[in-house]
Amino acid sequence: MKKHIFAIICILFAAAASAQNWQPLFNGKNLKGWTRINGKADYKVVDGTIVGTTKCNTPNTFLATDKNYGDFILEFEFMVDDALNSGVQIRSNRDKKYRNNVVHGYQFEIDPSKRAWSGGIYDEQRRGWLYPLTKNPAAQTAFKNGQWNKARIEACGNSIRTWINGVPCANLWDNADAQGFIGLQVHSIGNDKNLEGKNIAWRDIRICTTDVDKYLTPSSAPEVNCIDNTLSPSEVADGWVLLFNGKDSTGWRGAKLDSFPAKGWVIEDGLLKVMPSDGAESNNGGDIVTDRTYRDFILSVDFKITEGANSGIKYFVDPSLNKGAGSAIGCEFQILDDLRHPDAKLGVKGNRKLGSLYDLIPAPVKKPFDINNFNTATVIVRGNHVEHWLNGVKLIEYDRNNDMWNALVAYSKYRDWPNFGNRTEGNILLQDHGDEVWFKNVKIKEL
Amino acid sequence: MKKHIFAIICILFAAAASAQNWQPLFNGKNLKGWTRINGKADYKVVDGTIVGTTKCNTPNTFLATDKNYGDFILEFEFMVDDALNSGVQIRSNRDKKYRNNVVHGYQFEIDPSKRAWSGGIYDEQRRGWLYPLTKNPAAQTAFKNGQWNKARIEACGNSIRTWINGVPCANLWDNADAQGFIGLQVHSIGNDKNLEGKNIAWRDIRICTTDVDKYLTPSSAPEVNCIDNTLSPSEVADGWVLLFNGKDSTGWRGAKLDSFPAKGWVIEDGLLKVMPSDGAESNNGGDIVTDRTYRDFILSVDFKITEGANSGIKYFVDPSLNKGAGSAIGCEFQILDDLRHPDAKLGVKGNRKLGSLYDLIPAPVKKPFDINNFNTATVIVRGNHVEHWLNGVKLIEYDRNNDMWNALVAYSKYRDWPNFGNRTEGNILLQDHGDEVWFKNVKIKEL
Repeated sequence: MKKHIFAIICILFAAAASAQNWQPLFNGKNLKGWTRINGKADYKVVDGTIVGTTKCNTPNTFLATDKNYGDFILEFEFMVDDALNSGVQIRSNRDKKYRNNVVHGYQFEIDPSKRAWSGGIYDEQRRGWLYPLTKNPAAQTAFKNGQWNKARIEACGNSIRTWINGVPCANLWDNADAQGFIGLQVHSIGNDKNLEGKNIAWRDIRICTTDVDKYLTPSSAPEVNCIDNTLSPSEVADGWVLLFNGKDSTGWRGAKLDSFPAKGWVIEDGLLKVMPSDGAESNNGGDIVTDRTYRDFILSVDFKITEGANSGIKYFVDPSLNKGAGSAIGCEFQILDDLRHPDAKLGVKGNRKLGSLYDLIPAPVKKPFDINNFNTATVIVRGNHVEHWLNGVKLIEYDRNNDMWNALVAYSKYRDWPNFGNRTEGNILLQDHGDEVWFKNVKIKEL
Repeated sequence: MKKHIFAIICILFAAAASAQNWQPLFNGKNLKGWTRINGKADYKVVDGTIVGTTKCNTPNTFLATDKNYGDFILEFEFMVDDALNSGVQIRSNRDKKYRNNVVHGYQFEIDPSKRAWSGGIYDEQRRGWLYPLTKNPAAQTAFKNGQWNKARIEACGNSIRTWINGVPCANLWDNADAQGFIGLQVHSIGNDKNLEGKNIAWRDIRICTTDVDKYLTPSSAPEVNCIDNTLSPSEVADGWVLLFNGKDSTGWRGAKLDSFPAKGWVIEDGLLKVMPSDGAESNNGGDIVTDRTYRDFILSVDFKITEGANSGIKYFVDPSLNKGAGSAIGCEFQILDDLRHPDAKLGVKGNRKLGSLYDLIPAPVKKPFDINNFNTATVIVRGNHVEHWLNGVKLIEYDRNNDMWNALVAYSKYRDWPNFGNRTEGNILLQDHGDEVWFKNVKIKEL
């Protein structure tokens, strides 16, 4: 009998030692520890829940914690009136020097609309969407309209991850804010009387701020790395390598030079910029190529074009092939301002437009592209099978080293280059076409 | 004990009842029953074998059986001096009305050369090769040089099949000769003194002529059907269907007509002939198409061209698409006299030459083709995958209904036909291009 008592005591001690230290952020009775900021929407305590209510003619309103939190695990339940966009800020801040003291920072999205991005991460009043659920469509059914939903947010160092009802939603790697308040949003409704009086309710809000790394849970949500020109630990573990370090030209040289071009290319602010000249092909600094060749890979390049610009990302490049003027020879993921550059109208059925395999295979007319921001080009090579992706959407795919490939090349401007596109491996190239284009986050995973 | 004796007696009776009735054709002592014909090479009996010896300035010589044989199973062993071509005639004949009484008919090939067609079937002094071992390359290692080899020939009705050392070699379906003598060949050597005195030896020659069908053995050798415009029993069992019956236009109509063209096409001597006119596209009788459409299939067409001719075999044809002049629209296995027709020099990198997918994918420059004889075009369609074959050699293959296919079509003369080549099914077409071309053995197996 004594043995049993001893065992029970041991179990109780062990449980106490490993118990997660949850602290309630809401006492269920009043709004002690919270302050309304940024707007004038109403917050009340009703039956042990916090109920926020929309109001006309006031900006986004937040019920914010008086304390700041850095690394934590936050859980809460929420229920929202139909069609009412809302969210929960974390690590958020105000600063009189930034947009007149506006609340800004990470927002756990609550989105009962058809878009269904609840659990995504939005950077309020700053960068906008960091993790839309287009990155993780499987999570779009996690949120259930018209009922209580359980949220979990794990913020630890650069990692911010979210769950709704146990389903992994966002998985962000970012370093914008290490800490800040937590804020319950009532979204502005402008002057729309139809939306006035809509409610969003929260309850059972609790936070764990001790031994956070001990209680982190695995997530199947694909990670998005928002820290420019770096690799997250999971990217490193997954085999990704940076081709541009954000600081200098390490790993690159002129396609027809032994070293990096002395003019025409500028590295500043974490950007690799090809500078404007006369709009001609390789007539200023010239193309640049990786020191190494690559065989099977996933190549990811963020690019931003200027109006009317032409450039490109080439692969399977043989820099020694073209001894004359012009660009080095290889398959090209075309970069172009389709609306303004004349080459968009040349070629055959659009095969010189953005995302096309240049002069060979046209990308679809409909494709996701934002001329005002960075866009992500992805090239996937598995042996003879190649794919072009733009901002997460597959544009084209093809197989080379076969009858049809050779027949297609025979029709194109590459017809006279021997064995075009059939090399087992080649350099990666960024094109100087005489127009200003910016590159960053140039990374590759060999397969 | 009695039971045992009874059982043994039963077994002996059963064995006797089923024993194959072999008759020796050579008594091991002399050449009784054999006669030398056609030439003057020597035959002697040496140590129980028949030894034939080459001689200058005499034509092919045969040691022929005095009797004729129709359906039989023949077995013998043979050994041949290095580099000495030889053979054994079966169902062979002489006729004063045919080439001055020359020996002609089926020959079981003995071929110690690098070509290694031993066991193939040659039609001596008539049609030439009926079953070269290109039809069955697996059999090319069956014959062993410098040693005794065991041959087996099963001739039953239209079926003639051969084995060497147990390996199936030829599998022929033909009806040229129902019977004739068996003849051991010593090949002519012209005036080549170096080849004089070479030996070929035979022994253990035996034949079975009773209950032949009972002792036939299965063969894995692919069958070759030499009877025009017919299907062999195995082809029927395999799902082949004749598209041309050899007699009339059943199953065909003009591509732009409700019935078969009244002019421009002639059916005679088992041939479907497109007649010469002005060399223009569909300007005389016009193209003809099958009544039916086909989806997944193997199409086999024997064709013979005249000098400078142009024609073609189209598939996935939509006869209603082209309302104007010219040929109906579909993918074309091009038929052309590459050496003489000007279109061979047009197009891109040979994509209008014989066997090419017309104006799209060029067939290789090297391909097996005989302008003086019939050639076999084969088109294989499995969903989106298509292959062109010529005389048993694959020329090209491609996949349609994808980015690269559409990009290739966009470059070609088909660029303005909507969704070209992407139909699930279509008619089969034989083209009238104003030049005389003959077709026969038009057959299809749906997959």
